[in-house]
Amino acid sequence: MAERIVVALGGNALGKTPEEQLALVKGTARPIVDLVEKGYEVIIGHGNGPQVGMINLAMEFSANKGGGTPFMPFPECGAMTQGYIGYHLQQAIQQELRARGIERECATVVTQVVVDENDPGFRKPSKPVGSFYSKEEAEKIAAEKGFTFVEDAGRGYRRVVPSPIPKRIVERKVVEQLVEAGDIVITVGGGGIPVVETAQGLKGVAAVIDKDRASALLARDVRAGRLIILTAVDRVCVNFNKPDQRELEEMTLADCERYIAEGQFAPGSMLPKVESCMAFVKESEHGTALITSLSRAAEALEGKTGTVIRR
Amino acid sequence: MAERIVVALGGNALGKTPEEQLALVKGTARPIVDLVEKGYEVIIGHGNGPQVGMINLAMEFSANKGGGTPFMPFPECGAMTQGYIGYHLQQAIQQELRARGIERECATVVTQVVVDENDPGFRKPSKPVGSFYSKEEAEKIAAEKGFTFVEDAGRGYRRVVPSPIPKRIVERKVVEQLVEAGDIVITVGGGGIPVVETAQGLKGVAAVIDKDRASALLARDVRAGRLIILTAVDRVCVNFNKPDQRELEEMTLADCERYIAEGQFAPGSMLPKVESCMAFVKESEHGTALITSLSRAAEALEGKTGTVIRR
Repeated sequence: MAERIVVALGGNALGKTPEEQLALVKGTARPIVDLVEKGYEVIIGHGNGPQVGMINLAMEFSANKGGGTPFMPFPECGAMTQGYIGYHLQQAIQQELRARGIERECATVVTQVVVDENDPGFRKPSKPVGSFYSKEEAEKIAAEKGFTFVEDAGRGYRRVVPSPIPKRIVERKVVEQLVEAGDIVITVGGGGIPVVETAQGLKGVAAVIDKDRASALLARDVRAGRLIILTAVDRVCVNFNKPDQRELEEMTLADCERYIAEGQFAPGSMLPKVESCMAFVKESEHGTALITSLSRAAEALEGKTGTVIRR
Repeated sequence: MAERIVVALGGNALGKTPEEQLALVKGTARPIVDLVEKGYEVIIGHGNGPQVGMINLAMEFSANKGGGTPFMPFPECGAMTQGYIGYHLQQAIQQELRARGIERECATVVTQVVVDENDPGFRKPSKPVGSFYSKEEAEKIAAEKGFTFVEDAGRGYRRVVPSPIPKRIVERKVVEQLVEAGDIVITVGGGGIPVVETAQGLKGVAAVIDKDRASALLARDVRAGRLIILTAVDRVCVNFNKPDQRELEEMTLADCERYIAEGQFAPGSMLPKVESCMAFVKESEHGTALITSLSRAAEALEGKTGTVIRR
């Protein structure tokens, strides 16, 4: 039976403009299709930081400055990025499959991810999104819409949204159906469209779900054998950027905890990646996680590079 | 075996703002789930006129007026609407399924539709999109980007894009896989993201594909038994809005041709719907088409209302 892999791809790796993204996805498709060619079942989760930033900013600017278009809530902006990024990514992967004569489908599933409305993240929103405002403007919008603003390093006031922990992938079964049919599936774009459960069904909330966390949850729930979190470096390092920097071939969960206690991994950078790997390894029966670079992912699966996280 | 139905839903029925859309999809979900409850396999195609208009306008306004976001090509705006509309629609249908205790999945597939770059539509673009410009601005943009502009009833110059005939649903197999797994599938949003075949693979083009045409093509290719095109009225009429107005219970292909020759159906309104039904009926082996209102779709399938188009 083919081993099932969830690959978490960074939104930064997709560029800042549609032209950049269209060019970059071609380079992304090759190592992804390498995995397919090696016989793995591949599910792709991806970030959307720069893309949801761009769409949210444009919609806000147009609504506020006379463009005549309505205010667009944050979860809807996230849904738009899933269409926008998914379209480019699936097109590039389809072409790479075709060029290699592989008859497999690739598709994007619009994906919601449930978060807990009591998640502590909602009490201290921290992810800045959208434009900078003056104190007065920010106070006015806060009163009107209930948004939270923070002063951002002297540049003005900026809206902040929470980053809650993902609890459930709403379209998980759909993803499994497609993978079982042999498809390469693109899902949990931007960590998923954040929704909370209410008596009337799911409801979108303004939040940013970490895409590595969402990919780890997905990997557990689709019983993947491997979670691959892609980053800018081939291997996780300790003493990063110091004279005694050392690349790690593998870490047990105990090693991860020790290194985290030592402050080896930068918050907002390597730390959430290691934590997502730990969450998957802890909760999956036999799964291992891998942190490596996109270009060397296939080699990393053969043990030639990358950092393996295991029990 | 369950009969397979493709339902084509108008973009106008989805409202002009995210709040309107969120409210309207609840009303859309009920008759859709009625069909599911009656045992039909349901695939939903939908329009995106107001939505792609809004997104294209906001992205253009922000890019041109100092929002600091990049120019967004038209097919990418269409991809965004698939995420945006699909998210709301699937959420409402999921909730309606759940409320009725039906354990079925509903998902949106980001869908590209191939058009022929030699389609005559490309030689005379006619669908207006985006903002109004002065003659000078329009000429400048036309020179820079190769866009076509037309003067619009004294209101200024506006970009026009072609409306080519859809030739192939790229993600057709994926849609079939999901339907066969028992899911309700949302696809060909806005008629699909328009792409042309090139030596380097598929490439997005600025165009608007008629959503009824795309739904008819999809219905043929997934071997649906029925294509339902939803509109504002329960039945197609001849002598519409005249004293001798008459509702039609059914039309053969020959009837359709005769009524079209008589000019009974308004171009841009009922005509493309009737033509899409004819295209499906002609090319499918046993399929029939139905034009009716959303609220009475289930009754129409029982022959209580609607206009049936058959061979």
